[in-house]
Amino acid sequence: MSRPKKRDVALHAPLADEPSLDTQGFERPRAFMDDVDEDLSPLLEISNRPVVSARQFDRAQIVQLSRLAARYETQPQVINRPLTGKILISAFYEPSTRTRLSFESAWHRLGGDVMSITDPLSTGLAKGESLYDIGEMLNHYGDVVVLRDSNEKSIYEMIEALRIPIVNGGNGVDEHPTQALADVYTLLKWRPGLADPSCQEPPARIGIIGVPGQMRTVRSLLILLSRFASGIAEVTIVTDETQPFDPGQREELEADGLRIRVENDLDAVLPALDVVYINAIAWKGDDYEAMGSRFRLHAGSPLAEGAIVLHPLARGEELDRSLDPTPHNWYFAQARGAVFVRMALLSAMLKTYV
Amino acid sequence: MSRPKKRDVALHAPLADEPSLDTQGFERPRAFMDDVDEDLSPLLEISNRPVVSARQFDRAQIVQLSRLAARYETQPQVINRPLTGKILISAFYEPSTRTRLSFESAWHRLGGDVMSITDPLSTGLAKGESLYDIGEMLNHYGDVVVLRDSNEKSIYEMIEALRIPIVNGGNGVDEHPTQALADVYTLLKWRPGLADPSCQEPPARIGIIGVPGQMRTVRSLLILLSRFASGIAEVTIVTDETQPFDPGQREELEADGLRIRVENDLDAVLPALDVVYINAIAWKGDDYEAMGSRFRLHAGSPLAEGAIVLHPLARGEELDRSLDPTPHNWYFAQARGAVFVRMALLSAMLKTYV
Amino acid sequence: MSRPKKRDVALHAPLADEPSLDTQGFERPRAFMDDVDEDLSPLLEISNRPVVSARQFDRAQIVQLSRLAARYETQPQVINRPLTGKILISAFYEPSTRTRLSFESAWHRLGGDVMSITDPLSTGLAKGESLYDIGEMLNHYGDVVVLRDSNEKSIYEMIEALRIPIVNGGNGVDEHPTQALADVYTLLKWRPGLADPSCQEPPARIGIIGVPGQMRTVRSLLILLSRFASGIAEVTIVTDETQPFDPGQREELEADGLRIRVENDLDAVLPALDVVYINAIAWKGDDYEAMGSRFRLHAGSPLAEGAIVLHPLARGEELDRSLDPTPHNWYFAQARGAVFVRMALLSAMLKTYV
Repeated sequence: MSRPKKRDVALHAPLADEPSLDTQGFERPRAFMDDVDEDLSPLLEISNRPVVSARQFDRAQIVQLSRLAARYETQPQVINRPLTGKILISAFYEPSTRTRLSFESAWHRLGGDVMSITDPLSTGLAKGESLYDIGEMLNHYGDVVVLRDSNEKSIYEMIEALRIPIVNGGNGVDEHPTQALADVYTLLKWRPGLADPSCQEPPARIGIIGVPGQMRTVRSLLILLSRFASGIAEVTIVTDETQPFDPGQREELEADGLRIRVENDLDAVLPALDVVYINAIAWKGDDYEAMGSRFRLHAGSPLAEGAIVLHPLARGEELDRSLDPTPHNWYFAQARGAVFVRMALLSAMLKTYV
Repeated sequence: MSRPKKRDVALHAPLADEPSLDTQGFERPRAFMDDVDEDLSPLLEISNRPVVSARQFDRAQIVQLSRLAARYETQPQVINRPLTGKILISAFYEPSTRTRLSFESAWHRLGGDVMSITDPLSTGLAKGESLYDIGEMLNHYGDVVVLRDSNEKSIYEMIEALRIPIVNGGNGVDEHPTQALADVYTLLKWRPGLADPSCQEPPARIGIIGVPGQMRTVRSLLILLSRFASGIAEVTIVTDETQPFDPGQREELEADGLRIRVENDLDAVLPALDVVYINAIAWKGDDYEAMGSRFRLHAGSPLAEGAIVLHPLARGEELDRSLDPTPHNWYFAQARGAVFVRMALLSAMLKTYV
Repeated sequence: MSRPKKRDVALHAPLADEPSLDTQGFERPRAFMDDVDEDLSPLLEISNRPVVSARQFDRAQIVQLSRLAARYETQPQVINRPLTGKILISAFYEPSTRTRLSFESAWHRLGGDVMSITDPLSTGLAKGESLYDIGEMLNHYGDVVVLRDSNEKSIYEMIEALRIPIVNGGNGVDEHPTQALADVYTLLKWRPGLADPSCQEPPARIGIIGVPGQMRTVRSLLILLSRFASGIAEVTIVTDETQPFDPGQREELEADGLRIRVENDLDAVLPALDVVYINAIAWKGDDYEAMGSRFRLHAGSPLAEGAIVLHPLARGEELDRSLDPTPHNWYFAQARGAVFVRMALLSAMLKTYV
């Protein structure tokens, strides 16, 4: 057997190239910080309470969380480990490396310690213990809980016993509010004017390839977008589903001012979009299912000049690597920002903003 | 699909109510501290040695460990991270979230770092490595080991190679000494006079629903209770088993002064008990088995006024949630105290009492 | 059931005896430090780059890494937690407790935090995510990655996306460079003169029981040994395989000056060896396979007086415990040194030498 051909690359190329400063560097978050005044008062309401739904956040809170995230992204040296001695309990009953490491990294960068639960079989759950009892136990062991569970009701059961705050890290097909905060943080770095209802910029045309009633990331994102409805011309949902919304879901969003259209021909709508959000998995029956290959973005897709592509990752075939080196690729910047947004949220929950 | 009904609760109720101060607050451990003089000298014998069996502890050590636990429980602000730079190896070859997190939380609160082994398949054990070799390896990687293994002999095999201290986190059906320390810490907060052999209070009547020869928590608890025999009127074992003890087990306890009675009618004995200890699982044949539903405590059980209920948790059907809001519920306080007792024990093992 | 007979040992014997100071104590690393001048300049090339292959290290780097390891081994009190705030991502897609804990312990002792990925099923890999995408993600979550994967190409795929350094913790049957660094560190403590090309000591006769083309530890070790060819009389490969080398492997080593002989009668060659390296597992077909029992070292083996035995551990039947208490046992010292060598390497990668 001969050894891999990649060896020489590895031995001689020190590290991968730094990405474009435009999307991943300091200028975008710096500009956003300059554009928005710091005002921590909206964040006081977030302190010491559970974060379950995107519904809990109003525009001012989202903007100030994003501003705090931008501060962490541009001035990492100012962080003085304010969470030293604090313990995050990272309970991922539904496996997820990406979200788990993102939270744990955020907590560590603020100076805290982490205890992880990653193996469902190792937990009391497997022995039939109730989520109420697990929550009661966690009160004594840590300072904040992050929970991911494929059962959307689990967080509500655990919360009844919790006297420490919990963050929803994804509850079944229901919500994934911190992913949505990362999505909107990316949008605010892309167009800081979104934060300002009186902004004179043309409103953004946003496309979401996915099913709002079957995808937690899309559900939470739409709720947060509704807080910025005045800056959004329209949200186009691209889907094959005839009933892509849960009962009442579309009505709630429209009541909050969001204009929504549903289409099923991706390439026909792409040229008119400023932002294209695409996701990989949806809930079908009783398990997640990858989206079909019908909706697929690649370097040849008819994206408008200047249009940005977002994806919560991990991706499947729906987002082709040929887009990676193009300026449409904002999904890597989005992943980067997710750590800083979670730092901001955890800081707000514990009232440690420095 | 409609979303969960619990949503509104989660959005508007900040956190669960604080529990009764009487069982979970500062007054009980404070009163215990006032009642007992600090004397760290008995703890010197614990430093730098393995903790395998409840047999290793005499009355003075248990009382002083409990006093140290009470100090941590009431004065968390005095802890100056004395274990900074020290590493706990948390080896749970038999899965257990509750005990694992309890130890890891205790270690983190003292400032140390933790390395966890939670997946039996990932270990050398799965590759056929001997426990002796694993122990030899751990000497170089950490400062203290906590081991849980369903094979009761494992800790004895590992200990032959260890030059760092190990704590038994549960070895099969043999012992669980730190759980027993947490149980007795709870008893001492409930009745500080137990610590004093010359105390004039009426002796405690303790009932244990379980099988001393098949439950490690019960085995270890009985040994610790025998150190306080002068303050205990009688221990009533409630069981269906005709031979609930291992050969010699009852004799050893009685030789240490414990008065023991065996009964099988729970409701008949309950009214005369001050303390009722109940457990969920026992060893049957070659696996753990949940206790049957015959012995079951609930709000309608004929508990004496002022009687307290203990349970090492996780619980099954034997302990009904209807008892949770009653003053009989001391099991949540017991779980809370378990972290502080482990902090005290680990501090004593490393001679860092501050 | 009666309890284990080992109980009394555990209760009364405090800890296992300290090992021989000659192999595990401070004198050997101290002597090596005295013998070699500190010169950190060769380590500058290691900073901020991936460590994939033993090929990346020249003699001066190996010697100075070993000297730095010796400093950590003899002066643990001088380490001032230089990696505080830095995060190690410990990604073990192929399970390994020994190597994982060794890296994590090294990182913790330097003051850093660790995030572990130990369950392959919990990762994006299981969901079909590419290693490129995982690497891109890890850029944002930590400061260094350690990767072990049974697929030897994985590290090369991940490295294309990484802008933070990665360390190869074992890639299939290809390489295990940090194990080889630990092996050579042991050799340098045994015979400091190896570090000096002009040394007048008789050259070392080294035997390796194993298959260079099928064992990653042997492959990496041979490469490092070739950097010290002037101090090595000959390397004897003891194997049953008719083609123990990969194409070109032996030629590369001989071009670097290493004299190599292949034999298949272990006991016949043992008496002439100063160093005997033995390993447990080899790659056969599409899985690892334990070495047969034909090559086996034990207290009765015809080892030369003063000969030392090395083994990367975990061991199987090929290395009998009867050798443990003999002065031939340098494998435990080798395991101990592995932590300090990894501390040295990680320090060099992050340019924090104190």
